[in-house]
Amino acid sequence: MAQGTGVSYEELQLAARNHGLPLEALRWDVTPVGLHYLLVHYDIPDVDADAWRLEVDGLVERPLSLSLADLRDRDAVELAVTLECAGNGRAHVEPHVVSQPWLLEAVGTARWRGVPLASLLDEAGVQDSAVDVLFTGLDRGVEGEEEQSYARSLPLADAVAGDALLAYEINSVPLPPQHGFPLRLVVPGWYGMASVKWLARITLLAEPFDGYQMRHSYRLRAEEDEDGVPLSRIQVRSLLVPPGIPEFLSRARVVEAGTCVLGGRAWSGEGEVEGVEVSTDGGETWTEVELGPAALGRYAWRGWSFRWEATPGEYELCSRARDAAGNVQPLDPPWNVGGYANNAVQRVAVTVPDRG
Amino acid sequence: MAQGTGVSYEELQLAARNHGLPLEALRWDVTPVGLHYLLVHYDIPDVDADAWRLEVDGLVERPLSLSLADLRDRDAVELAVTLECAGNGRAHVEPHVVSQPWLLEAVGTARWRGVPLASLLDEAGVQDSAVDVLFTGLDRGVEGEEEQSYARSLPLADAVAGDALLAYEINSVPLPPQHGFPLRLVVPGWYGMASVKWLARITLLAEPFDGYQMRHSYRLRAEEDEDGVPLSRIQVRSLLVPPGIPEFLSRARVVEAGTCVLGGRAWSGEGEVEGVEVSTDGGETWTEVELGPAALGRYAWRGWSFRWEATPGEYELCSRARDAAGNVQPLDPPWNVGGYANNAVQRVAVTVPDRG
Repeated sequence: MAQGTGVSYEELQLAARNHGLPLEALRWDVTPVGLHYLLVHYDIPDVDADAWRLEVDGLVERPLSLSLADLRDRDAVELAVTLECAGNGRAHVEPHVVSQPWLLEAVGTARWRGVPLASLLDEAGVQDSAVDVLFTGLDRGVEGEEEQSYARSLPLADAVAGDALLAYEINSVPLPPQHGFPLRLVVPGWYGMASVKWLARITLLAEPFDGYQMRHSYRLRAEEDEDGVPLSRIQVRSLLVPPGIPEFLSRARVVEAGTCVLGGRAWSGEGEVEGVEVSTDGGETWTEVELGPAALGRYAWRGWSFRWEATPGEYELCSRARDAAGNVQPLDPPWNVGGYANNAVQRVAVTVPDRG
Repeated sequence: MAQGTGVSYEELQLAARNHGLPLEALRWDVTPVGLHYLLVHYDIPDVDADAWRLEVDGLVERPLSLSLADLRDRDAVELAVTLECAGNGRAHVEPHVVSQPWLLEAVGTARWRGVPLASLLDEAGVQDSAVDVLFTGLDRGVEGEEEQSYARSLPLADAVAGDALLAYEINSVPLPPQHGFPLRLVVPGWYGMASVKWLARITLLAEPFDGYQMRHSYRLRAEEDEDGVPLSRIQVRSLLVPPGIPEFLSRARVVEAGTCVLGGRAWSGEGEVEGVEVSTDGGETWTEVELGPAALGRYAWRGWSFRWEATPGEYELCSRARDAAGNVQPLDPPWNVGGYANNAVQRVAVTVPDRG
C-alpha cells in the first residue's frame, strides 16, 4: 500500500472536478479544447446567452450594457496566451497547504478572440477619479463564510496597458461553458485568477477593490497574519513532455536506449524566456537546449528541444528556464501560506533498460 | 488541517491528469466537449492521421486496411451514448483500493458518429472459427511489469449485436486527441474500458483474448487470488446536480428556503431505467420523482426532476435509480479487489439557512 499524501477528502473532490493538462499534451503549440487546464472556483453557471449582458459601470462617462452580438460587432483581436493557475505546484509544497492539489499540470495555451479591454474602457470613458477595474463573474459560492460572486480587480494601469482581452472564442470556437461562456476576461502574463470567467460586470472604482479574492486569497504571505502582496504575473517556468512510456500507476517512464528527443515548453509573465537548460541527473549538471521560434507571440509559451543520447541506467530529468527579468526557476519549492507560484523545476524519473 | 484520505502520491498524479465531469454539468443532455470524463490509461498518443490505418485481420475472409477517409466514405450512424468508467466511485470504497481515485464524476454523454462495428465485420467476413474480437489501441505503457498496448476484446456475439460503433466524431466535431483521434470504439451500455481509444487494429480470434486488461484488470473479484468475472455492462446509477451554491473547499451546499427543483440523470447498461427516488434525509425516506423523456435513445442517460420544498435545516440529498432488469442502487458501496462498479447512492450535504 502506497503512503498517503495528506490530501484530504475535500482536496480530492477538487482534484476530481478540476482538470489538469496531461503533460504529454505539452506537445501541441495550442492546447486542444478539453486539454487546457480548468479551475472552476465555484460551479459552472448556467447562462442564458440571450438574456446575458455585459454591464460597464461605476466611474465611467457612458455606462454600457452590451449583448454578445454587440460585442461581436466590435473590432476583434486574437491572441495566443499561456494561462497558468497560481496554485500550480501546490501539492509539492511542504508543509502541506490545503486547497486544489495541483502537481504540475495547471497550464495551457489557447488562441483567445474578442474585444480589447482597453478599447471598451475607452468607449465607456473612464473618469479621472478611477484607479481600479473590478470584474465580476456569474459564478457564486461561499468562502471564508462569505457568500460571494467570484470577483477580482486590476489596477487601471494594468487594465489598459497589458493587452487584456474580453474573449468570446477559444481556438476559433465559441467559449464552451467551462471556459466562461459567453464572455471572459483574459489577462496575458498574469496567473489565471485574474482572468475572470462568466463575466457579467466591469466596474470602475475610486479605490482598490478589497473583496475576498483580493484581500484574502491569491496573496503571497510568509505568515498567516501578515498582509502580503497580491499575486499578479506568472513566474518563469518550464515543463518537459515525459519521454518514453509510462507505468500506469506510478507514471514512471521507460525510455529505449539511443537518441531521445526531449521537448517541452517554457514561459514567464515577467519577461521573455531567455533560455532553458536540461539536466538528466536531477539538477547536478545542466546543458543549454535549443529554443524554438516565438511563433505564438509574446504571451504564449515557447517550445524547446534537446537530443538526449540515452544509455542504460536510471535518470532524473529536469528543465530550468530563465527570463529577461533575471528570474530562474528554483530547484526546490518556495513556501508561502497559500502554496502559490511554486515554479520549482519538474523532476521526471526515467529508466533506460539494458536490453543487451 | 483536514484529515488525510490515504490517497497516495501516485493516485494524486492520476487524479490530476484524468478529468471528471463537474457534477453541475449533468444539466446538459449532451455533455459539452471538455466536460466529459476522461481516463487516459497510459499517454495520449501522437497520431499522424495521414499515415494511420485501421487494420482488420485475424480470422476474416478479407483483411482490411482502411484510412480515415475510407471510413468516412462508409455508411455512418450517430448514437447518443452514456459512458462511465468502471472505477467510478472507487474512492468511496473501503478498505481503500489504490488506483484512479474517482468519487462520482467519471461519466458523460456524447453523440458519437461513425461506422457500425457489425457492418465492418460483415465486410471483412468473419470466419466460423472466430469467437472473440480484439481491439488494440496505439497507447502504450507498462503495467504488471508487462509492456503493452492497451488492448481489450469483446465476445463476437456482443461485438455484432450491441450497436457498437467505430467513432470518428463526437458532438459533430472530429474526435479531439484525448477522446481517441482518429478513431475509437464505443460500446453502448458497457463500462468505458471496453471502448478502446486510438484504435489501430481489430483482430478476430479463435480463443478469448487473455491480455493484461482482460486477465488481470477490469475483473470483479472478492479475493486477490480468485479468477473473478470480467466487468461488462454499466450498473444502474443516478446522480443529482448539487443544488444551490457551494462552499469552495468542502463543496457543501447552501440552498435558499422555498421551492428548489432538484434534477439529475439516471442510466443503466442492464436495462431501461424504470424509476428514480429521491431522499432528503440521507436515505431514511424516499419519494418517486418524475422521469424526463428518453429523448436521447436507449443508450443514454435519462433526465429526472423533483420539486423540493426546502425549509431551514440540514439535509442529506440522495437519489436511487432502478432498472428493468430489477437492479436498484445500493445505499452502501460494494467492495471488490479493484474497487469497480461502485454504484452506491450519492450523498449531498445541504444547508437551508434560516434567514428570518
